Amino acid sequence: MKKLNIAIVGLGNIGSYLFKYLKDNNKILTEKNNCQPIIKYVSAKNKNRKRNIIIKRNQWLNNYLDATVKDDVDLIIELIGGAEGPAKKLVFNALKNKKHVVTANKALIAKYGDRLAKIAEKNKVNLEFEASVCGGVPIIRSLKEGLIANKITKIYGIFNGTSNYILSSMDKENKEFNDVLINAQKLGYAESNPSADLNGDDVSSKLKILTSLCFNSFLNNNIYVEGIKQIDKTDIDNANKLGYKIKLLGFAELLNNKIYQRVHPTLIKKDSYVASIDGVLNAVIIDGKPVGQSTIQGEGAGAAATTSALVSDISSVLRGNIKFPFSLSNKERKKLKFENLNQRLFSAYLRFEVEDKPGILSNITNIFSKNRVSIKRLVQNPHKKSSSIVIITHKSKDIFLKKTLREVDRKNFVKHKSKLIRIDE
Amino acid sequence: MKKLNIAIVGLGNIGSYLFKYLKDNNKILTEKNNCQPIIKYVSAKNKNRKRNIIIKRNQWLNNYLDATVKDDVDLIIELIGGAEGPAKKLVFNALKNKKHVVTANKALIAKYGDRLAKIAEKNKVNLEFEASVCGGVPIIRSLKEGLIANKITKIYGIFNGTSNYILSSMDKENKEFNDVLINAQKLGYAESNPSADLNGDDVSSKLKILTSLCFNSFLNNNIYVEGIKQIDKTDIDNANKLGYKIKLLGFAELLNNKIYQRVHPTLIKKDSYVASIDGVLNAVIIDGKPVGQSTIQGEGAGAAATTSALVSDISSVLRGNIKFPFSLSNKERKKLKFENLNQRLFSAYLRFEVEDKPGILSNITNIFSKNRVSIKRLVQNPHKKSSSIVIITHKSKDIFLKKTLREVDRKNFVKHKSKLIRIDE
Repeated sequence: MKKLNIAIVGLGNIGSYLFKYLKDNNKILTEKNNCQPIIKYVSAKNKNRKRNIIIKRNQWLNNYLDATVKDDVDLIIELIGGAEGPAKKLVFNALKNKKHVVTANKALIAKYGDRLAKIAEKNKVNLEFEASVCGGVPIIRSLKEGLIANKITKIYGIFNGTSNYILSSMDKENKEFNDVLINAQKLGYAESNPSADLNGDDVSSKLKILTSLCFNSFLNNNIYVEGIKQIDKTDIDNANKLGYKIKLLGFAELLNNKIYQRVHPTLIKKDSYVASIDGVLNAVIIDGKPVGQSTIQGEGAGAAATTSALVSDISSVLRGNIKFPFSLSNKERKKLKFENLNQRLFSAYLRFEVEDKPGILSNITNIFSKNRVSIKRLVQNPHKKSSSIVIITHKSKDIFLKKTLREVDRKNFVKHKSKLIRIDE
Repeated sequence: MKKLNIAIVGLGNIGSYLFKYLKDNNKILTEKNNCQPIIKYVSAKNKNRKRNIIIKRNQWLNNYLDATVKDDVDLIIELIGGAEGPAKKLVFNALKNKKHVVTANKALIAKYGDRLAKIAEKNKVNLEFEASVCGGVPIIRSLKEGLIANKITKIYGIFNGTSNYILSSMDKENKEFNDVLINAQKLGYAESNPSADLNGDDVSSKLKILTSLCFNSFLNNNIYVEGIKQIDKTDIDNANKLGYKIKLLGFAELLNNKIYQRVHPTLIKKDSYVASIDGVLNAVIIDGKPVGQSTIQGEGAGAAATTSALVSDISSVLRGNIKFPFSLSNKERKKLKFENLNQRLFSAYLRFEVEDKPGILSNITNIFSKNRVSIKRLVQNPHKKSSSIVIITHKSKDIFLKKTLREVDRKNFVKHKSKLIRIDE
């Protein structure tokens, strides 16, 4: 029986779960892949942390970088995290030294994936990153293999469980953002520093990776990113009254040979599939030809789901199934044109909290008209001494929507920063 | 560049679509798989049928079985259909002669898959059948690769687009079974002879294949199969009033080390994910450990979606990615115990159309009580001279539910054959 020697670098929740999984399921994995995975080495910053796994003395590496030079290591599993520092050093060195790499590190792949893929290709080793996008949802393998036949025109969905949990809890439990966030942290659905989840950065990294796989292009930083921090209960309630839910969605689309990447809170019809995805689930929707529309949904995070993804990558290495990390050879990947959103048309929800005085509504609608943003629906709700104006627009260029918002915000009668949430029809 | 010589046998809608696809997308497929697919030969019963593809003279085989003996054929794509006859002969001969096989033939795989897999394994060739289950939904590849880490306890879903189209149209358009069926045939969603779609046989074949992949077992014919022909508009309306939709579902579950395979119309909660899948879509839900619940959804039929699946299989062969057809070597596949439904507990919907005379209700409830089927909910609706009784039961053994139905049906006061539809909670 063939054997594959593995070093796991990083032994937090995920690394420890994976370690135990590979021990407990060694027989079936060996049978399915015709090759036995052997955990030769591990490395972690804190050796003494309680892990509930039995690590032998001679499995510990003195220095995590030793994994990249030892002859009895074939595959390095990087679970350190972060685009820079030790993770970066480890993965670059591993590939340079002809070690296969499996990683869950979306920040690293989104930033250095192209350079890393080039080295992997040159050295004929695997660079696998299923676990970097949407946890247990086998989206990368599906794009590379199950849906390989398809020319994809759009991919979108819910790629961040924390944000989705917060938005759906605000909706269902009728709570404000901060209350839900505290609860999410207690339940382990949000980290103590949740900023990458809430400001859209996490989705941005995942989307960049998916974009390059869908469109056979290089990674590209032309992406519009907006998180959910400015969404409050009033927006959720307004959306409900108008027949929508608010979700943090990532989109990558090919329109007229240009690619648009965007991450932002989005109003979507209540009865749509995406609106029904609540809690920490992730969902990915793909429009492709010839397959039509495909959807994959599952647990987006957590040690268990991530291990499912890591093991699918490990199995690919066990089977000797070496592929280009981004489906195509470096020289065949395309330099496509990425475009910002300015000229892209959106309907939008805008909300203005203003003083309740005569002339203000006409002042606002005047700014809309001047910017050629046409109003489809307008609701004005009076409060004590103030007034809340919600406007749904017809499709307008994004640049004019943003300009309208800015111009209204400059007025003295505006009491809070105004809102602009794009609508997906 | 490596090359792979292909023979396509069967040139109906799917075969012709695939032929054109492989021509039009030759470059990108070659780049992605590092090997060029070449359509060396084709064969079809009717050479002169209009196909809108250009087949060269020397591509036609005189006899379809020639594909299995020619030295310049590496891969045979079987698109004849049917578990017996030419398809069977072609695939057995191909594998015996060390040709790779890609097939969309669920009946063949469900019946002879174990024997075929054994030959493929011995001869170290691929036997791939992604297109045999749920069209463009990459469920087989996901089970074999993306979700390889998981111990699966349940797989279920909507595996037949025709039935699902009929049931959802009856519901949405308020039409009777036969009217919807005629319409489905006009739209190409149902074949002129739709019996395999409507009597559950199509789902049965697909489910057997999925079961063996999920549980690492051999194919097994212990399966309960019931189609949708007996469902009428009244059942759909009753279900709606009770908060359910009726769907034709396939289920395979592992309970106490026994496997239960079943295909039947099912009442499922209106707000569940499966209830929301309308029209010809297919959806597969998988409960696995460590991944949790995963869902894959997409186009279940048609030449385009099927080509997507066929090309994923062809790509696997192009990459030289030889795997065991059912994930495991023949000698490692398990002989699990398959159980019939008799002792399995279900809540159920029962409907009785009876004469409107005194004593009948007590007569019926008496039969329930005698069989220890306890009633959760009962609705009696009077018609002219007759009465419709709908009963929702608490969980009861299937054998007693069926017995109750039979015993009531024997009574003279029963005007139409009674109904029993299982409920999924």
